[in-house]
Amino acid sequence: MSLEKLSTNELRVVEETRPLEPSVRSKTPLRHYLWVPLLVLALGFESFHVYLDWVAPTTVQLRQIGPDFSHLASHCAHIPAISPDSFLARQDALARTLHSLNVAAYIAEPGASAGFFANLSRSHWGLSERPLLLIIQPQTGDEGTVRANVSILTPAFEETRARTLPIPSDAGVTYTSWAEDANPFSTALNLVPDLADATIYVDGDVRTFITDGLQKAAPEAKVLNAPVEVKRLRERKSSEELDIMKCVNEVTVLAIRAVRKHTKIGMRESEVKQLMRSALSAAGLTDIFSLVLFGDNAALPHGGGSDRVLGKHDFILIDTGGALHGYHSDTTRTFALDTSAIPLRYQALWQSVHSAQRHAMLTARNGTVTAAVDHAARKVIKEAGYGQYFTHRLGHGIGLEVHESPYLRGGSDDIILSGHAFSNEPGIYIEGKVGVRLEDCFYIDDDGDAKYLTEGVGGQASSPWSP
Amino acid sequence: MSLEKLSTNELRVVEETRPLEPSVRSKTPLRHYLWVPLLVLALGFESFHVYLDWVAPTTVQLRQIGPDFSHLASHCAHIPAISPDSFLARQDALARTLHSLNVAAYIAEPGASAGFFANLSRSHWGLSERPLLLIIQPQTGDEGTVRANVSILTPAFEETRARTLPIPSDAGVTYTSWAEDANPFSTALNLVPDLADATIYVDGDVRTFITDGLQKAAPEAKVLNAPVEVKRLRERKSSEELDIMKCVNEVTVLAIRAVRKHTKIGMRESEVKQLMRSALSAAGLTDIFSLVLFGDNAALPHGGGSDRVLGKHDFILIDTGGALHGYHSDTTRTFALDTSAIPLRYQALWQSVHSAQRHAMLTARNGTVTAAVDHAARKVIKEAGYGQYFTHRLGHGIGLEVHESPYLRGGSDDIILSGHAFSNEPGIYIEGKVGVRLEDCFYIDDDGDAKYLTEGVGGQASSPWSP
Repeated sequence: MSLEKLSTNELRVVEETRPLEPSVRSKTPLRHYLWVPLLVLALGFESFHVYLDWVAPTTVQLRQIGPDFSHLASHCAHIPAISPDSFLARQDALARTLHSLNVAAYIAEPGASAGFFANLSRSHWGLSERPLLLIIQPQTGDEGTVRANVSILTPAFEETRARTLPIPSDAGVTYTSWAEDANPFSTALNLVPDLADATIYVDGDVRTFITDGLQKAAPEAKVLNAPVEVKRLRERKSSEELDIMKCVNEVTVLAIRAVRKHTKIGMRESEVKQLMRSALSAAGLTDIFSLVLFGDNAALPHGGGSDRVLGKHDFILIDTGGALHGYHSDTTRTFALDTSAIPLRYQALWQSVHSAQRHAMLTARNGTVTAAVDHAARKVIKEAGYGQYFTHRLGHGIGLEVHESPYLRGGSDDIILSGHAFSNEPGIYIEGKVGVRLEDCFYIDDDGDAKYLTEGVGGQASSPWSP
Repeated sequence: MSLEKLSTNELRVVEETRPLEPSVRSKTPLRHYLWVPLLVLALGFESFHVYLDWVAPTTVQLRQIGPDFSHLASHCAHIPAISPDSFLARQDALARTLHSLNVAAYIAEPGASAGFFANLSRSHWGLSERPLLLIIQPQTGDEGTVRANVSILTPAFEETRARTLPIPSDAGVTYTSWAEDANPFSTALNLVPDLADATIYVDGDVRTFITDGLQKAAPEAKVLNAPVEVKRLRERKSSEELDIMKCVNEVTVLAIRAVRKHTKIGMRESEVKQLMRSALSAAGLTDIFSLVLFGDNAALPHGGGSDRVLGKHDFILIDTGGALHGYHSDTTRTFALDTSAIPLRYQALWQSVHSAQRHAMLTARNGTVTAAVDHAARKVIKEAGYGQYFTHRLGHGIGLEVHESPYLRGGSDDIILSGHAFSNEPGIYIEGKVGVRLEDCFYIDDDGDAKYLTEGVGGQASSPWSP
């Protein structure tokens, strides 16, 4: 009956019951195996338990990890998480925005936006059919300053747990609980005075039955999807956020470079994927993902189904990232090994993508529309004759979500502003043949210029042999 | 950049890199450890690798699983998944409902509802910021029969993958793709003729930015949360669904009984939890959850934080379930071991909860309002003097989601109909002391009576010693 029981944590533990498969098998000389039958004869099968209880747990663990990526651990160790004061500043900024738009309240479910304003992500509280909502309202003080009032609507029988949520708040969080036989939406809206005339914003990720429930509980109020003025509060990153985002993107590039050193012709995609995970784990990242595609498998941007072996003439495409203090990295390198022999025409594709990525950076500025940046990259690839093979948008916003608004895509007139952070990931995908994508994230600095988040480790890749 | 890379599967594999902890340690006699130093001296450390490569993987796996629960594997082996014809029948039933309500289209994101109508669950397609939508429209044939038109709106660059989705459809699925520089919502609504006058239903789990995007793309149309007439199509189970649900609930009870045999005074909650997972895994279930709480830890319905040791005077509460062909079980047993000494006053609580559960069954019938069933159970516990300790609703609908509408709760006037399936889970929770919950799922049969889904294995528990 619990809602936690379906949370990600639960699923994780379930999966742990699967047998482990050693990721990197050592090359044990055959002679070492000769004594096995002798040992069994001499000591009996029961004696093997010694290994299982004493020796194997430690050793299996060491072998699991494979190559030593421990040098990555220190890279971001000095970077602090977002401070409580920053959460308060975010809440007050939201309150001022709501006040200026004459909006009575902002409502979000646990997720990236509630995580931004109140440290209430889905790792803190999973979604269920019982709404738990963050409600932020502007309150005008005596001196005319507008501050945030932070409330949590919680199911009554979970109030004890809800009150343990680590929500920063200046004046203290108000907990409003709805009994099992009550309407949660009416309970939530009891917080709003002058409801009939009120406008309420809901976060875009809120589920429709909640938005609909709020509207039905207050038919004369206006319940609206929160507009760009609110979204921008999270879209535009502070220097505190950018410090985290720089570090997590840097260490991701360092991890790719470290993995490259352990990659050999003849390995499978799954083996390199495992190396990539180990490296990002060693770097201390959470929410790790990695897409590893060899040769023609990289021709589908999201990968094919096979576990291909690396050939001498294949590019290696790794699209990978993880999270530090909740902020994500997203980096793609298409590269070759020192022992690779990449056809010249494929090297030329790499150069086109590289050039497209550079041109996008020159276009992205404070005040530019997002479509113009997509266009700048696309123009380079089109002029190289591969326009039809650049099949996706140039990039996405990044932060507390890997993909978040705004997006660098044609047809979008969103305005780029200082503090915005994006992926810049042009690609060329020729099915059955080859795929090349290069991806670095960048931000717009206070001067309005685009800067790579990975600048500290060299930014953009230098060549297929120097990713 | 991929959307799969953030899917549950990815997170699972990440988690597998954690070291396994043997769940059940064997009692190896000490003399077996004496030869370890000798062996190391004689053969060198490298020889241990033999175990790791040859012996340990198999044996560790066997040891991980612990007790043998393989007898559970056969229980549901003969139960088939939902047939393609049934999906077509569901689509046509939806089409007829839409037609009768003069509604132009029903739209859902991948999830339980799209899974019900078109085999499009989130394990088939994860949610991202790029909408992929199921669109079902009624179409009237020459003979006046109404059939379903099934369409998928897909991001253009993912169309190849979208076309591999196993969506049953009579007339074939129409794929409509939106380019990266297009408005996905306008593209979706291009499918709807006479859009200005149209009513469009969206599933309640659709995210607000999509509902809002659809409404803005067609300001004169009405985009509404799908009402009860549509929700009932999924709420009311067919005999094919009930066969699956009976089996998955039966085998969950059998698994709890099997775990009880391996539970001993002095074990930790986490150890029993691991046993429970192993048993449900052996039964072939997916999406396994289990909440295991001893003694006063069970006094919080969703559990506390500690990993308590089982004492002689403690009840064991196990709330657990898993899925078979997408349909979930949900069962709670509060029980004692043969060696337990449960205080008589706690045994009396057990009897009150047991009686409440029975009275709920007598009230639940075709035509009853859900609140009346909650009331019937609550009345029993109130009369026993523990009304204030029954802190949650009586139950929830169950099927493709563990918790789904309708709910057995006070304040609800939903009507119970044949085919509805619910959990029936009264409880008494006295903080710091004891918690008792008993949970069995039931359905309303064609005669309008409530029947336990676990009837085949005895239904309701018989006593704290016979769960």
